[in-house]
Amino acid sequence: MRPIAIIGIGQTKIDEQWDKSIREIAAEAIFAALKDARRESAEGIFIGNMMSGIINNQNNLGPLVADWAGLKVPAVKVDAACGSGGAAFRSGLIAVASGELESALVVGVEKMTDRHPHEVTAALATAADADYEIEMGVSFVGLNALIMRRYMYEYGWKHADFAPFAINAHANALHNPFARLHNKITLDDFEKSSMIATPINLLDASPIGDGAAAMYIVPAETLQGGTRILIAGSASATDTIAIHNRSDPLFLAAAYKSSQEVYRQAGIGPGDIDVFELHDAFTIMSALSLEACGFAERGQGPRLGLDGAITPTGHIPVMTRGGLKARGHPVGATGIYQLVEVVQQLRGECGDTQVPEARIGMAQNIGGSGATIITHILRRE
Amino acid sequence: MRPIAIIGIGQTKIDEQWDKSIREIAAEAIFAALKDARRESAEGIFIGNMMSGIINNQNNLGPLVADWAGLKVPAVKVDAACGSGGAAFRSGLIAVASGELESALVVGVEKMTDRHPHEVTAALATAADADYEIEMGVSFVGLNALIMRRYMYEYGWKHADFAPFAINAHANALHNPFARLHNKITLDDFEKSSMIATPINLLDASPIGDGAAAMYIVPAETLQGGTRILIAGSASATDTIAIHNRSDPLFLAAAYKSSQEVYRQAGIGPGDIDVFELHDAFTIMSALSLEACGFAERGQGPRLGLDGAITPTGHIPVMTRGGLKARGHPVGATGIYQLVEVVQQLRGECGDTQVPEARIGMAQNIGGSGATIITHILRRE
Repeated sequence: MRPIAIIGIGQTKIDEQWDKSIREIAAEAIFAALKDARRESAEGIFIGNMMSGIINNQNNLGPLVADWAGLKVPAVKVDAACGSGGAAFRSGLIAVASGELESALVVGVEKMTDRHPHEVTAALATAADADYEIEMGVSFVGLNALIMRRYMYEYGWKHADFAPFAINAHANALHNPFARLHNKITLDDFEKSSMIATPINLLDASPIGDGAAAMYIVPAETLQGGTRILIAGSASATDTIAIHNRSDPLFLAAAYKSSQEVYRQAGIGPGDIDVFELHDAFTIMSALSLEACGFAERGQGPRLGLDGAITPTGHIPVMTRGGLKARGHPVGATGIYQLVEVVQQLRGECGDTQVPEARIGMAQNIGGSGATIITHILRRE
Repeated sequence: MRPIAIIGIGQTKIDEQWDKSIREIAAEAIFAALKDARRESAEGIFIGNMMSGIINNQNNLGPLVADWAGLKVPAVKVDAACGSGGAAFRSGLIAVASGELESALVVGVEKMTDRHPHEVTAALATAADADYEIEMGVSFVGLNALIMRRYMYEYGWKHADFAPFAINAHANALHNPFARLHNKITLDDFEKSSMIATPINLLDASPIGDGAAAMYIVPAETLQGGTRILIAGSASATDTIAIHNRSDPLFLAAAYKSSQEVYRQAGIGPGDIDVFELHDAFTIMSALSLEACGFAERGQGPRLGLDGAITPTGHIPVMTRGGLKARGHPVGATGIYQLVEVVQQLRGECGDTQVPEARIGMAQNIGGSGATIITHILRRE
């Protein structure tokens, strides 16, 4: 397949956007990406979204968004729970790389804050195994809490050891105007924040929100010289959805598989990654992602936080625009926000949280507690 | 892109399957397709489904189904409301045709009968425009009733003129063991059936159900001689989702666009189609599909039914295995059932409803009241 370049990005601020419908939020990101790409339309639209059918009473987002944006082109929604953005990007990528389309807009969108929190909690739980996990009374945060508790027990970490993931995310989000949260936090704040599901505190967990992010992709061969942002690797992998059925619930097998595959495609290893936008829905997931992708030994993920390696000037910067933790986690849109932020880093547009000389970036989007994991590597050339 | 062949098909009976979960139903169709293809696994799984998040409290169907079927390969769900099956097939097709995968399973699945009918009606309504149609109190069948009433007024048809579509579907379903309904109906039954939303009677409307259908696709170049079923055309198009915003609500513009595109790809015209599995969610949609795809002049679709052209021995056989009307309409699975049935026709496996010498077949899957329309042409060689 032919190489693909990203020529446009767009995003909305993540917030409680009660005055806008889901189609308006999606179109806002699309218009920004079109403007950035200097294009007026695209041959296809791929939409990442998880819960519009449940929360917004709206399926069929493809034609809804295409029509509202004034682009009556083929459009489809791709769903992989919280990994929907990454999955939609991969679908659009294959469609353009194959020659089926000459351009595509990929947009991730989610509007979650119009409903009562217990309805949103129920909707988020649809990412887990309804029959064998949710029916037993465990929530999605509860599943992550089980993983975190076991991890702390197996490897001897205490709760405060996860604080650097949240502190770094909040510090970086201060410089991202699109981020939901703009408050610096301290170790003391982290330790004293409200308990959600032991050992997960409020500051271990990412906030939901309404938002959309979009990208415009074309075949690289159509660009005339200049700096280009190319997709150097794209892979998806699945694992058992219920954590009790995994042979090792403390290892993200699908993150390992998909990251190994993108390293192979890009001809690089973890040491070559300049910036890594990972899926920090909960602090424990940051540790597990870093380990599965080869940045830390098994059980040693928190060490990278404690050593300062994850800050923008560290050797493996993560959540440089705030991550899920502080930029926010509009679930089906998150995967596109991550990719947009990697592009911002590779373009050198990140100001105070710019990773010096960033040339290769990775984004990893997770659906469920590790069931679907989609990894992409982008490279500036 | 390289030509693609269908080497395996599978389906479950459409019914109220209260003793099986959605993953079990999906896996039953997958196992049948694998057996038919004489394969043990595939490199990717594409799942068409519309409402599992709403009705089954289950998103993330990709890893759920892949894991349950014992195939831990990349898997994703594609959603285009009632057009989800066709959209998933097109995604799988592009992935294999592009060289990204060497084989794929595409499965459409829906489990709709565990909930109260009013919940299912609400879930079906998510295929329409939530803000501008559903919020005003119109249901999905209500939207189709508005179209049908206007069509009857504009072109002078009476309700009984639509009966042949339903009578033909029920007659054909008698010979399909996987069909939901196995009862012959008469013109008298049609006229006397209960009113749902005037002018739509119970016998104008397709029944929902639980079911799954699956297909196994590979690059045609990997097959050694013999008869092959190839995909000769694949296209998707979108229209305005709300019918009041269409310049002409009596013309399926997206059916016209996608059928013209597949005719062009296949190098044929409507006169070359031996069998056409269309999306007869309501009898009015049969008429509109036949017109938009070039089988009848504007406003003359019902004539094909009255003249007997739509039966298996007519010149444009439709719903040869029962169609949505009598085979049943498990919404996100329907698009794959249609394709499976076209394959059965091209293989000559349809017994009493076999279309003589069927060599080229078309399947058309509709999401919403014409918002997303995906059309495929298959050819036996």
